[in-house]
Amino acid sequence: MGGRRGLGLGRALLGVMALRAGGHSQAAMNGLKEKVLTLDSMNPCVQRVEYAVRGPIVLRALELEQELRQGVKKPFTEVIRANIGDAQAMGQKPITFLRQVLALCIHPDLLNSADFPEDAKRRAQRILQACGGHSLGAYSISPGIQMIREDVARYIERRDGGIPADPNNIFLSTGASDAIVTVLKLLVFGEGRTRTGVLIPIPQYPLYSAALAELNAVQVDYYLDEERAWALDVAELRRALRQARDHCRPRALCVINPGNPTGAFPPPPPAARRRATPGQPAPDRPAESSAPSRLTPDLSRLLAPGQVQTRECIEAVIRFAYEEGLFLLADEVYQDNVYAEGSQFHSFKKVLTEMGPPYAARQELASFHSVSKGFMGECGFRGGYVEVVNMDAAVQQQMQKLRSVRLCPPTPGQVLLDAVLSPPAPSDPSFAQFQAEKREVLAELAAKAKLTEQVFNEAPGIHCNPVQGAMYSFPRVQLPPRAVQRAQELGLAPDMFFCMRLLEETGICVVPGSGFGQREGTYHFRMTILPPMEKLRPLLEKLSQFHAKFTLEYS
Amino acid sequence: MGGRRGLGLGRALLGVMALRAGGHSQAAMNGLKEKVLTLDSMNPCVQRVEYAVRGPIVLRALELEQELRQGVKKPFTEVIRANIGDAQAMGQKPITFLRQVLALCIHPDLLNSADFPEDAKRRAQRILQACGGHSLGAYSISPGIQMIREDVARYIERRDGGIPADPNNIFLSTGASDAIVTVLKLLVFGEGRTRTGVLIPIPQYPLYSAALAELNAVQVDYYLDEERAWALDVAELRRALRQARDHCRPRALCVINPGNPTGAFPPPPPAARRRATPGQPAPDRPAESSAPSRLTPDLSRLLAPGQVQTRECIEAVIRFAYEEGLFLLADEVYQDNVYAEGSQFHSFKKVLTEMGPPYAARQELASFHSVSKGFMGECGFRGGYVEVVNMDAAVQQQMQKLRSVRLCPPTPGQVLLDAVLSPPAPSDPSFAQFQAEKREVLAELAAKAKLTEQVFNEAPGIHCNPVQGAMYSFPRVQLPPRAVQRAQELGLAPDMFFCMRLLEETGICVVPGSGFGQREGTYHFRMTILPPMEKLRPLLEKLSQFHAKFTLEYS
Repeated sequence: MGGRRGLGLGRALLGVMALRAGGHSQAAMNGLKEKVLTLDSMNPCVQRVEYAVRGPIVLRALELEQELRQGVKKPFTEVIRANIGDAQAMGQKPITFLRQVLALCIHPDLLNSADFPEDAKRRAQRILQACGGHSLGAYSISPGIQMIREDVARYIERRDGGIPADPNNIFLSTGASDAIVTVLKLLVFGEGRTRTGVLIPIPQYPLYSAALAELNAVQVDYYLDEERAWALDVAELRRALRQARDHCRPRALCVINPGNPTGAFPPPPPAARRRATPGQPAPDRPAESSAPSRLTPDLSRLLAPGQVQTRECIEAVIRFAYEEGLFLLADEVYQDNVYAEGSQFHSFKKVLTEMGPPYAARQELASFHSVSKGFMGECGFRGGYVEVVNMDAAVQQQMQKLRSVRLCPPTPGQVLLDAVLSPPAPSDPSFAQFQAEKREVLAELAAKAKLTEQVFNEAPGIHCNPVQGAMYSFPRVQLPPRAVQRAQELGLAPDMFFCMRLLEETGICVVPGSGFGQREGTYHFRMTILPPMEKLRPLLEKLSQFHAKFTLEYS
Repeated sequence: MGGRRGLGLGRALLGVMALRAGGHSQAAMNGLKEKVLTLDSMNPCVQRVEYAVRGPIVLRALELEQELRQGVKKPFTEVIRANIGDAQAMGQKPITFLRQVLALCIHPDLLNSADFPEDAKRRAQRILQACGGHSLGAYSISPGIQMIREDVARYIERRDGGIPADPNNIFLSTGASDAIVTVLKLLVFGEGRTRTGVLIPIPQYPLYSAALAELNAVQVDYYLDEERAWALDVAELRRALRQARDHCRPRALCVINPGNPTGAFPPPPPAARRRATPGQPAPDRPAESSAPSRLTPDLSRLLAPGQVQTRECIEAVIRFAYEEGLFLLADEVYQDNVYAEGSQFHSFKKVLTEMGPPYAARQELASFHSVSKGFMGECGFRGGYVEVVNMDAAVQQQMQKLRSVRLCPPTPGQVLLDAVLSPPAPSDPSFAQFQAEKREVLAELAAKAKLTEQVFNEAPGIHCNPVQGAMYSFPRVQLPPRAVQRAQELGLAPDMFFCMRLLEETGICVVPGSGFGQREGTYHFRMTILPPMEKLRPLLEKLSQFHAKFTLEYS
C-alpha cells in the first residue's frame, strides 16, 4: 500500500509541476517548426489564473476514480468529492415541480399528458408564450426572456419586503459567474499604477481571483476575521484600501454573503464572538457599527435583536463603499442557505434602499443570484441573474451591448430560475409537494452544517467555525513544522500537501485553503456539507483521524 | 404616416447617438457625488465592442413590436426579424427525437411513459448514467460529459472519413461563441506594436470583431472577393498579413466556412466566377491553388471534380497559415448548411490531416461547431464544441484550467449536441421520422436560398451572390449619392440609414453591411433566409420595392 500510495502522490505532484513548467522547448529540441501557441507565447494573464475548486487535486481525484474502475487496489473503495458545491452530484434529488415545468417546455407534446399537474402545465404554457416561435430553441433577447425578468423583479420585491425592483435592471445569466465577470469587465482597465483594484474577501471564492487575473486587475485582499467566525470588519476594509491606493486604483468591493468558502453569515452570533477571546472584551468593532442606526422606527420595529446586528454590518459596508467611491458587488447566491438560528438573510439592495439618502439613490450595487445553490442545486443548467442598482444608464446600455455578443443565457436555466423564484402558490396542486421537498433539503443541510462543526471541533488540531450559511465548512488545521518543511521541499503549499495525502489515503477530496486565501501561517481546507447524511459522519471522522495520523507522522 | 415615421426614425437615431454620447455629466450638473462607473471611467475596450446583429436596429425593432402591441398604427402589421440566424423563432419546428431525449433526461419519470420511443429512452438512460448523481442538475467536468466528448469524437471520425479524433481534444462549450472566445483569449496579449493581430474575413460575423475589441487585439481585415461569390483569395491574405506586420504581431487566422454573413462556400462555383468578369479570363488565382495537389491517389479518387476545387482552396489556406506561423480558427458551425449543387463540406481538420507532413503533424487548428444552426436550430440551448488539433499540450492544460473557472457548459446543450451528432441508426424506431424531419428542413432552406438569390437579382440596384451555404444572403445595394449624403449628415453609415428606413416603413429587420464590414463605398445588408416560405417571397419583393422607392426618393 505504502509504495503505491507514494507513487500516486508522486504522479500527482508531477502533474502539479507540469502545470507550471510546460513543454515549449520540445519542438525546438526535435528540430521542428516551433508552435504558434506555447506557454512562452500565450496570454500571460491566462497563465496567472488559478481555480482551486477544480485544480490539480480534482484532476488527481478523477484519475483515482478511473484507477478504481480499472480494479487498482486502494485503501478506499470510492472517491468522495467534497470539493465543490454540487448537491445533485452528491445524491440530492431534483425538486419535482421544477423538472416538470422544464420538461413540458422542452417537449410541449407533454401538455396533453395526464401525468403532469395543471399548475406546471399553466406555467410552461405561459413561458412558451413568451419565447420566440414559442420554443426554447429560439434565442431569447440578451438580458433574458422579458416575462422571466418581470417574475424575477417580483421575487426580489417579495424578498425585500416590497421595495420595488425594475425588470430592466435585471440581466439573466449563464450561472452567477457569468454575470459577475460581466460586471468586473465593465470596471477593469488601466496599466501599472492606474490598474483597477478590486477588494475581495480572504478567504474568497476563487472565481474572483481567477477573473481578476484574467482581466489584469489588481486583487486587493481584505481578511475576514476567523476569530470572530469570519466576520467582515470595516477597519480591515479600510486598511486594505489604504495600502492598495499606493499601487493601483481601487474601484470595487466584493462581498460574499452568506460566505463561500467560510459558511459564515455576518456578523458572528454572540457564542462565536465569545469563543474568540475568552475572558476579554469583545474584539474591536468597526466604528461604523456603533454609530446610531439610521433605520426609521417603522423598519427597526420589524427586526429581532439578532437581525439588527446583521443589518448594521451590511450598513457599515455600504457606508464605507459610498464614502470611498467603490462599486459594490454582492454575491448573494446562498441567500436561501441560512442555517444559524435566529438569523435571516438581508439583501444588500434592501438595506441600501432602507438607508435612504444619500446612499439609496447613489450607491452603485450589483447583486448576484443563481439556480445552482439554495434548495434546488441545479448547477448543470447554468441559470442565474444580476440586478444592478443605481448603475449609470449609459453604462447599463454598454453592459447590455456586451452581453448581446454572447446572444443569450441558456433558456433551460432561465426556465428553472423562473420556476424557482415563483414557486407554486398555496392554492396550486403542486404546492404541498414543492414545500415538502424544499423543507426536507434545507433541514438536512442545516443538520449537516451542525454535525460538521461538531465533529471537527472534537478533533485536536482542527478548529471549525459555525457553518451558518452556504454549503461549506472551512476548518483550520494545525500542521506540524516537519510537514510544512516537507511540503516546501516538494514545492507545494502545506495544505495542498495535506489535502493531496488525504485524497491518496482516504479518497476524500477537499480543497486546500491556499486556493481561497488565508492568513500567512494558517492552514485550512474547504469541505462541502453535501455528502449524504449516512456518509457524512464517517467521512468527518475519517478525516479527523487522518489528521491525527498525519500529525503523528510528522511530529 | 409620414410624421410618425419621421418621429420613429428620429427616436431611433437618438438612441444610436445616446449609445455614443452617454450621460456622465448629469450627476455633476446636479451637484451629486459622481458615480464610480460612467462612460468616462469604464473599460474602454468594452466601449469599442460593437455587435450589429443585436445593435440599435434590433433595439428599434423591439420598440416597434411593442408599439404595434399597444395599437400604434404602422404601415405594417408585424415586424419580421430577418436579422439573426434563429430558425425556431421564425417558426421552424424542433426535431422530435432531440426534444424527446432531452425531456427524458430532464424528468426521468418519463422513462416509464409509453409515449416515448425505446431508442430515445436508451439514449437518455445512457446519458444520465454518465452524469454526476445521474442528473443533469450536477455540474459536468469542465470540458463536458466524458461520454459525450467520446460521441463527438466518433461523429468527427465519421464526418472526416475515418480520420481519428481524440475525445481529450474536444471541449464542449456554451454555443460556439464561447469556445471561439476561449481560444482567442489564449492567443491575445501585448501592447502597442506587439499587440496580437488576428486575421478575419470581411465581411465577418461580428462576434470576431467584438471579441477582438474586448480583448484589446488588433483586427486584421482580409477581404473576401464579392466578384467571385465571396471567394477567399490567398493573395489577399498575404496582402493583409504584410500590412499588419507593420503595426502588430499577427498570430491567428479565422476562416468561416460556409460563410457568415456571405452564405458563401469556397471556392465559387464556375457560374459565379464567369459572372464576375464576363469575356475575360478568370481572375487571378492564388499561386497555391495551381500547385499540384498533394493528395494521395487513394484519397483524391474519392473526390468528385467540384470537390477537389474546394479542397484546394482549404489546402492553400492551410499552407499559408503554416508558412506564416498562424494559428488557424475554423468556424464550421454551418457544416450541415450546404445548398450549392455538387458541393460538399470538407472540414479543415480532414484536409489538414490528408495533406500529410509537415502540415498534418504541426499546423495548429481549432474547429468550432454548434447546435444553433444546421437542421436543428436549437439556438436557445447554447450547445457547441471546439476540437483542437496539434495544440501544445501545456497550452491545452491552460485552456482546460481557464474553462474550469466557469465550471461547465450547460448540460441540456450537451445532451442536444450528443443527440444531434449521434442520430438514430437505421434500425432504431426513431430513424425514419428523424431523417424525414431533417430532410424537410434542409430542403426548405435550399429552396429559400435559391428564391432569395433569384428575387434579389431581378431587382435593379440589388446584386446577390448565390447563397451556397449557411443561412444568410448578403446582397449589395446601390444607394444614391443624396442618400449617402443624408446619412452622413445624420452621422450614420449609409446602409444603417437604409436599413433603419426599411424597418420603419416595412417592418423588415435586416442588418446593415457596415456591421459585418465591406469594401469602402459598397453597401450591403445581411438578411436570413429563415422566414417561412409563404412569407419569404412577399418579404423579398417588399424589400426590393422599398429599395426602388428609396432610390427614387434620393435621386
